Amino acid sequence: MVSYVTEEIPPSVWYGWGDPARAKPLGEGALGFLRTTLGLADVDPDRPPVEHSAVRVAPSRLAEPALDELRSICGAGHVSTARDERILHAGGKSTPDLLRIRGGDALAAPDAVIAPGNDEQVRRILEVCVRHRIAVVPFGGGTSVVGGVEPLRGPFTAVITLDMRRMAALLDIDPLSRTASFEAGIRGPGIEAALQSHGFTLGHFPQSHQEATLGGYLATRSAGQASTGYGRSDALVKTVHLETPAGPMDVGSPSPGSAAGPRLLDLVVGSEGTLGVVTSATMMIAPLPAHKSYGAWSFPDFEAGATALRLLEHEGRRGDMPHVCRLSDADETAATFKLGGFKTGLLASYLSRRGQSTPALALFLWEGPKAETAARKRRSARILRAAGGVPLGPMPATAWEHGRFSGPYLRDELLTRGVYVETLETATTWTKLGATYAAVRTAILAALEARGGRGYVQTHVSHVYPDGASLYFTFLGSLEDDAQAQNARVKGAASRAIVAAGATITHHHAVGTDHAPYLGAEIGELGIEVLSSIKEALDPSGIMNPGKLIPAPTNTATTEEKP
Amino acid sequence: MVSYVTEEIPPSVWYGWGDPARAKPLGEGALGFLRTTLGLADVDPDRPPVEHSAVRVAPSRLAEPALDELRSICGAGHVSTARDERILHAGGKSTPDLLRIRGGDALAAPDAVIAPGNDEQVRRILEVCVRHRIAVVPFGGGTSVVGGVEPLRGPFTAVITLDMRRMAALLDIDPLSRTASFEAGIRGPGIEAALQSHGFTLGHFPQSHQEATLGGYLATRSAGQASTGYGRSDALVKTVHLETPAGPMDVGSPSPGSAAGPRLLDLVVGSEGTLGVVTSATMMIAPLPAHKSYGAWSFPDFEAGATALRLLEHEGRRGDMPHVCRLSDADETAATFKLGGFKTGLLASYLSRRGQSTPALALFLWEGPKAETAARKRRSARILRAAGGVPLGPMPATAWEHGRFSGPYLRDELLTRGVYVETLETATTWTKLGATYAAVRTAILAALEARGGRGYVQTHVSHVYPDGASLYFTFLGSLEDDAQAQNARVKGAASRAIVAAGATITHHHAVGTDHAPYLGAEIGELGIEVLSSIKEALDPSGIMNPGKLIPAPTNTATTEEKP
Repeated sequence: MVSYVTEEIPPSVWYGWGDPARAKPLGEGALGFLRTTLGLADVDPDRPPVEHSAVRVAPSRLAEPALDELRSICGAGHVSTARDERILHAGGKSTPDLLRIRGGDALAAPDAVIAPGNDEQVRRILEVCVRHRIAVVPFGGGTSVVGGVEPLRGPFTAVITLDMRRMAALLDIDPLSRTASFEAGIRGPGIEAALQSHGFTLGHFPQSHQEATLGGYLATRSAGQASTGYGRSDALVKTVHLETPAGPMDVGSPSPGSAAGPRLLDLVVGSEGTLGVVTSATMMIAPLPAHKSYGAWSFPDFEAGATALRLLEHEGRRGDMPHVCRLSDADETAATFKLGGFKTGLLASYLSRRGQSTPALALFLWEGPKAETAARKRRSARILRAAGGVPLGPMPATAWEHGRFSGPYLRDELLTRGVYVETLETATTWTKLGATYAAVRTAILAALEARGGRGYVQTHVSHVYPDGASLYFTFLGSLEDDAQAQNARVKGAASRAIVAAGATITHHHAVGTDHAPYLGAEIGELGIEVLSSIKEALDPSGIMNPGKLIPAPTNTATTEEKP
Repeated sequence: MVSYVTEEIPPSVWYGWGDPARAKPLGEGALGFLRTTLGLADVDPDRPPVEHSAVRVAPSRLAEPALDELRSICGAGHVSTARDERILHAGGKSTPDLLRIRGGDALAAPDAVIAPGNDEQVRRILEVCVRHRIAVVPFGGGTSVVGGVEPLRGPFTAVITLDMRRMAALLDIDPLSRTASFEAGIRGPGIEAALQSHGFTLGHFPQSHQEATLGGYLATRSAGQASTGYGRSDALVKTVHLETPAGPMDVGSPSPGSAAGPRLLDLVVGSEGTLGVVTSATMMIAPLPAHKSYGAWSFPDFEAGATALRLLEHEGRRGDMPHVCRLSDADETAATFKLGGFKTGLLASYLSRRGQSTPALALFLWEGPKAETAARKRRSARILRAAGGVPLGPMPATAWEHGRFSGPYLRDELLTRGVYVETLETATTWTKLGATYAAVRTAILAALEARGGRGYVQTHVSHVYPDGASLYFTFLGSLEDDAQAQNARVKGAASRAIVAAGATITHHHAVGTDHAPYLGAEIGELGIEVLSSIKEALDPSGIMNPGKLIPAPTNTATTEEKP
């Protein structure tokens, strides 16, 4: 059996990702690449986060009577107004969140951090918060990159963060029906550890896997890196228990294939804490694969590679699709080769002799019983070769897998070195993939370079579907003095290009605050009204995660005008 | 290529199914089986429907001003208050619908039948209906077996039926992204004819295929007989255009894998006409299979067969599952063997020698490229054999396929012969499948025999999922004088047993009026409130298909008491 138990790491450091002691610093090659690519004289680490002691936090606004009630519900030890705790929950891991906290601004930190121990405590906390008009931010791993856990007070007297860390148990496993139920605060490695002893896996490995929780997966419709094989979180979920201000609610059916009306499960999944708190869920699970088989192929260009991926999906045998399926564009491929310890010169001349001067690298991972996996890989190879692919052996894919959770550490170092870095993603049909790629890439590059300086964009397809694929953009520039404005400019330009291309504003990062202005363009005014009416039914006082998902009326108008 | 173009038949006859000229009357063997099984002296056709001229229809309540407005929208030729049209739309094809209409009762027929030609006409019709307080019943193929198109007037001045027959075009096909858009009034054979010329199929073949429409599929979350392979309608749909009293609404994303908030598409799918009128939709399509391979296997009993199906799903290779996968219990198997032209004696003695005295028949259909299909079938055979299966060759499966759309004709003849017949379905996890089967079967049999006489129940698994399977019950008895009461008694007993077993009240028949009292038990009071709040947002005056899906408050209370 393949081991899927992923390394447990402590909750993220206050100013960035995970446990900084585990970060692998950039080598001289990478620093040289940055200097050259961005035309920077200096990438020295001279913009570190402020000292922890220098972080500015406003006094807690939570009044003593409410605090007393909360303490009597959870126990005083699980209700904290301590500065450290509040700083740790002052935001998620979006670029605006990081820029703010690294600059020492935790003025919007929650007024208290509460860690409930069970459903009933959550229910009673919500009752208290309705009564005292306190906003509530559900908090799992705190890994949102779209402002999803920003503690916005809105019109309320105070805002608290509900940290779900204590609710992290495996509740039940049914090997016969291949389902398992968990409390929502369980993190990725905890899920895998719990399932592996029974021979199962959830197969859900987003880049945030080590920090993010099941509740967060479901609240944001997350996709994992192997979701091409195992399915996205919204395909794996069967039922969710939600505690709402209007009361507890179970959505979804234990029975497969119910036709009992609209699927309320799909209202709760993706609701981003705006309707209530996901406290537990039942998920489909899969047997641990006996074997993993890796493959890497090079294609003449991104377009040829995308066509190969489509053919794999359309022409391959049923069930042959790899569990992981990624394709980098020429820029990302060049960077991977240069920075990945490859013998770049040899590889480039080999590929050049094969007619690939701007190669696009595709990575594959097939999982399953050994013979079956080998057969799938062998048949896939025929399609990839016919589509112009050149096999490169397994190493690029194993190297990718080895570093697949370490990206977020890099961001912290880049910011410290004065390099602006951001990622965003979309998805579209095969028919529109090329145009969307070109338009979004162009928009990002233009916005990166709008104030002078040089920008860099690299892109990959991260997930493949019968009808289309995702596009994941990573981009860099010199960090401007007003980095928040810089980020808003670049991210705004990309978002508008996505909307104009008719693609989705988010493939797996969710909506949060950052994408909320664009939701109206995607689901329509009437769609927003329906979301609002559901919120009105479950959260009539509006305390649940205000400012997220549902755009404020003025924002919607702004979006229509395409600012 | 396999031909998927299914026979077009005219819209159903007023008193029953399809074109009675195409019905194949019961042979002497079947009549003998009925006499013996139900202990009936007489199954003569002495309870035919009344003469068409004897059907009772109330005068249309639609006032002239509203009628004039509707005529000016659609053209006078598409607004009918003619007796024939109103009788044709007086109900669907549920047992209560059939018993009512066969008895000559069309007193609740709609006050007019309107056939809109495009979205704008639908929109304007809804405006008129809101203004004049007229209830609206969307009507596709009219094949609901749960009262979904019953023209209930509710608190409104009149009720009209919107027959979608004129909106039946293929709008667009995208072979690269494998999607196609249709107007909602297109029927199953029309969909297949349109797609086949492009080399594609929707792969959606419910028993109602020849009559039912795409809009109806989506409004009811239908599953087709090959949905184990192609996916249910709710898995195939990408986007839906809905005309609601609050305005037009597009739900779903053209992009695969969007994480842009709750999935409003899943509110519209399954909404059964209570939120608005589905006027068009974009669906995933699949290449026409080059080959179909059939298989039938016999198992020692239903439980052993169900285990074999589960093992096929769990232990088979990725992608090996048959497109069609059915398993009959011992009673259904015995009836199939007896009535299906099999050499029953030989077969029974053969199976008995193999240790199968109460055999359970499983039917399989694999579709795809020839070599691939053969390999899937071969590997599946190993699993089935190891699970105690005895192969019977392809004939039982081809025979099933040949007659797979003819079941509804049989019902008309049985009622004419004084035989009560009904079907219902549920789904549950593998873990609960055996107990659910036993409990529902027992409840049906007891209710059938509650007034004396003999009942008969046969059951099959029609769809298989990783986490469980469906159960489809067909049952017969002597038709009592008060057949409506008889049906309510039996169906009620079955529904309560399903609820008590924790299974879903419907796997693919939908909710309609018949299952509405049980929806509260499945989705909870808060779930009902959420549905109501969505309806309030899209249909504030409540004109859309009143009395369907959402239980009346009193009904919910009744359900809680488990009457």
